[in-house]
Amino acid sequence: MRVDANELQRFFRPKSVAVVGASVKEGTVGRALIENLIERFRGRIYPVNIKYDEVLGLKCFKSCRDLPEPPDLVVVAVPARVVPKVIDECGSIGSRAAVVISAGFREIGGEGAKLEEAVVKMARKHGMRVIGPNCLGIYSPSVGLDTIFNPSDRQGKPDAGPVAFISQSGALGAAVLDWFTEAGLGMSKFVSYGNAADVKEYELIEFLADDEETKVITAYLEGVEDGRKFSESLRYAAGRGKPVIILKAGKSVKGAKAVSSHTGSMAGSYRVYESAIKQFGGLLVDELSELVIAAKALSWLPTPRGDRVAIVTNGGGAGVLATDAVEKYGMRMAELTDDTQKALRNELPSAAAVGNPVDVLGDAPPERYRKALKWVIKDPNVDALVVIGIMQSPAFDPEGFIEVLREASSGVSKPVVIAAPGGEYTSDKISKIEKLLHLPAFKTPEEAVRALSYLMRWRKVVERFGKG
Amino acid sequence: MRVDANELQRFFRPKSVAVVGASVKEGTVGRALIENLIERFRGRIYPVNIKYDEVLGLKCFKSCRDLPEPPDLVVVAVPARVVPKVIDECGSIGSRAAVVISAGFREIGGEGAKLEEAVVKMARKHGMRVIGPNCLGIYSPSVGLDTIFNPSDRQGKPDAGPVAFISQSGALGAAVLDWFTEAGLGMSKFVSYGNAADVKEYELIEFLADDEETKVITAYLEGVEDGRKFSESLRYAAGRGKPVIILKAGKSVKGAKAVSSHTGSMAGSYRVYESAIKQFGGLLVDELSELVIAAKALSWLPTPRGDRVAIVTNGGGAGVLATDAVEKYGMRMAELTDDTQKALRNELPSAAAVGNPVDVLGDAPPERYRKALKWVIKDPNVDALVVIGIMQSPAFDPEGFIEVLREASSGVSKPVVIAAPGGEYTSDKISKIEKLLHLPAFKTPEEAVRALSYLMRWRKVVERFGKG
Repeated sequence: MRVDANELQRFFRPKSVAVVGASVKEGTVGRALIENLIERFRGRIYPVNIKYDEVLGLKCFKSCRDLPEPPDLVVVAVPARVVPKVIDECGSIGSRAAVVISAGFREIGGEGAKLEEAVVKMARKHGMRVIGPNCLGIYSPSVGLDTIFNPSDRQGKPDAGPVAFISQSGALGAAVLDWFTEAGLGMSKFVSYGNAADVKEYELIEFLADDEETKVITAYLEGVEDGRKFSESLRYAAGRGKPVIILKAGKSVKGAKAVSSHTGSMAGSYRVYESAIKQFGGLLVDELSELVIAAKALSWLPTPRGDRVAIVTNGGGAGVLATDAVEKYGMRMAELTDDTQKALRNELPSAAAVGNPVDVLGDAPPERYRKALKWVIKDPNVDALVVIGIMQSPAFDPEGFIEVLREASSGVSKPVVIAAPGGEYTSDKISKIEKLLHLPAFKTPEEAVRALSYLMRWRKVVERFGKG
Repeated sequence: MRVDANELQRFFRPKSVAVVGASVKEGTVGRALIENLIERFRGRIYPVNIKYDEVLGLKCFKSCRDLPEPPDLVVVAVPARVVPKVIDECGSIGSRAAVVISAGFREIGGEGAKLEEAVVKMARKHGMRVIGPNCLGIYSPSVGLDTIFNPSDRQGKPDAGPVAFISQSGALGAAVLDWFTEAGLGMSKFVSYGNAADVKEYELIEFLADDEETKVITAYLEGVEDGRKFSESLRYAAGRGKPVIILKAGKSVKGAKAVSSHTGSMAGSYRVYESAIKQFGGLLVDELSELVIAAKALSWLPTPRGDRVAIVTNGGGAGVLATDAVEKYGMRMAELTDDTQKALRNELPSAAAVGNPVDVLGDAPPERYRKALKWVIKDPNVDALVVIGIMQSPAFDPEGFIEVLREASSGVSKPVVIAAPGGEYTSDKISKIEKLLHLPAFKTPEEAVRALSYLMRWRKVVERFGKG
């Protein structure tokens, strides 16, 4: 571990949390924070606000100095000008970790930048680490720690699971968190790190690379301050077998300009990022939707041994589209062995195509998929599999299809992805497949193949850096 | 009109339809066809089957020769070997249009190819036009004509509307039809033309280019026989102000091989298609999902005057991603006029960004969007607009947002698209926006910008070919 594990661990496994700026007022951040903690946090909760004696049934303290113990974590949601003093007080009683949610720092320039410097100075004085300011903070479901103050009816929060997500942008972070929830992705830790006045993205990446709960790291970045340390954190994660999937915003000239008016950070040259991320074993994605697709693929599927893809379909056209996508994303169509082709020829109807794509035909019942998948998945020339179900066909049986997929994918170290183009009926079955089997399922053949492509890219990283 | 309008019109506005191969048996194509017609078709229906006197309450005829009138359209669902005789009989009594759903023709080679030749020969003999064989046939909602025999619980069919879709693949056609339904796209005509033994895709394109119900033509193609006539049909459609959105499968070497084992057609060189489609005014898309996105954009939105895009957002990060996408898709970020920027500076909070992207900030209520949109949409430097709503924020009011979008987009000849990243809550609001306002709404800023990019491409076609 290159970063001090204990230093950052404090943020994610606190036994006690103080909320400075706790409130009873409806619609305030200070109230939402206390509500979230009461609902799920398993440690001690200390509201701090000079105005109250009690907040939502908990004793409220006038100042950090009045607390019965130094809280492991302090969450700060008070006006910016007060924050340096709060940090100083908390530090002086022995707290060593703070999340500063308050905005009004470097992102507004001038006076704000000075306040931010003061915060960092106070933190350094006490050996305290600070996440933020100007952020949404932390979500750590395994311990019920949750500083994301958006209303629960509109802000989904994933169950505990293997995907970590760090975001420089709070709002976009919240949106992705919400999307991950809908996508059924389990989450280890989420960190909205905002201005990164103290704790930097590279420290979080290295911490997560060593975190046992985390299998896959995702990140939304606008700019990093120290390119060398950032690159090294990627290499460190790669060496620890943890893929780091990165969406870098501010790729274009105007986008970089928009970054500087958003977080005040320097977007820098995208080409430089691109080549550094590639060289040091990160997985760069181009669009927001890819964060979700790549996270699904890398957290749900095994890493393939090679880049040879087989396709089994009940629709010729969708099979062709998948085939085109295999080439587009730099993989190869598997050449099925003679044995496989002979077996398929024996077991499938004569009109079926037994090359790759294998076409089990539009009238295929589950049994025909079973026969095809049985042979194709054990073919030594096949590294990964795309299974296509055109579900409008009267012969298609979704329950049977799911059973066949379960059999075919269980106990196999080859990734299987699903494509099923269609409308409401199909959308519903796609959700079921993902929920029941944790196999990524998509509306288009191209997306399914794209999901595999992240695994192929990760395989190459593993080959270079070991582990995985 | 280059193709004989009356010839193809017969298929889409028949007053009488015969179904050869009508059946009472559950689960047969022959029964589903009669059921569909009874449910929605407004003309006369003639079941034909030597085995029955009655099918689902309708008098059934032993042969076409026994019919009381030559039906305007004959739908054929009998074994392939019988089809030439059926065509001959129907032709001899005076029918001039047949849809042959039956498979077992050129796509199986040898004997099948001969049967197909026989079908064409019989059709020519009687001056009859034939769609198919090996197809799903026709869906023409304005007259309730529907030969798509998939079960209605799993096969969505769009309401009447401006989008036409032709598909060489039946299964993929059905899947896209289903998807269009879920996407809320209205449909003028759907044709699954299968082997195109007689009626070719270029004839359908020219017919649809003149069809008053059709505003946008979408097509899934694997290969065309006559490249020159195909190209000319695109130019014809462009000249008539009808965008033709084309997904061409069989782009890769292996994909082209898969095409030949699917429909038996020649995929040809993708580069040749690419340059021909571009040159003759078609809009080529790369993936299945783009058919849907492009159809939405082109059927719901006005054509912009130029390529200058403005972004209004309540989240900085999403604004940056949209900005990056504007450059990626070859458009430009609008430079807002001084007047607009001054007005925004006056009316928005001081922390708001009044350049482009305009950031109304995370705590923006609808009123703030209203102020921003009012100025941005009338800015003479703005040709198109992306509005981003991060809906997790407690301040975000979806009902108010929808109202503001309605005001901003009504009576304006500038296209407006929406992006709202998130989970279930957001997905629900996205559906509402699309349904209530017919503004394309997406989960990612990139997709929203991509939707605009099809309009920009279409604008260039219009500039070259006139109309639009």
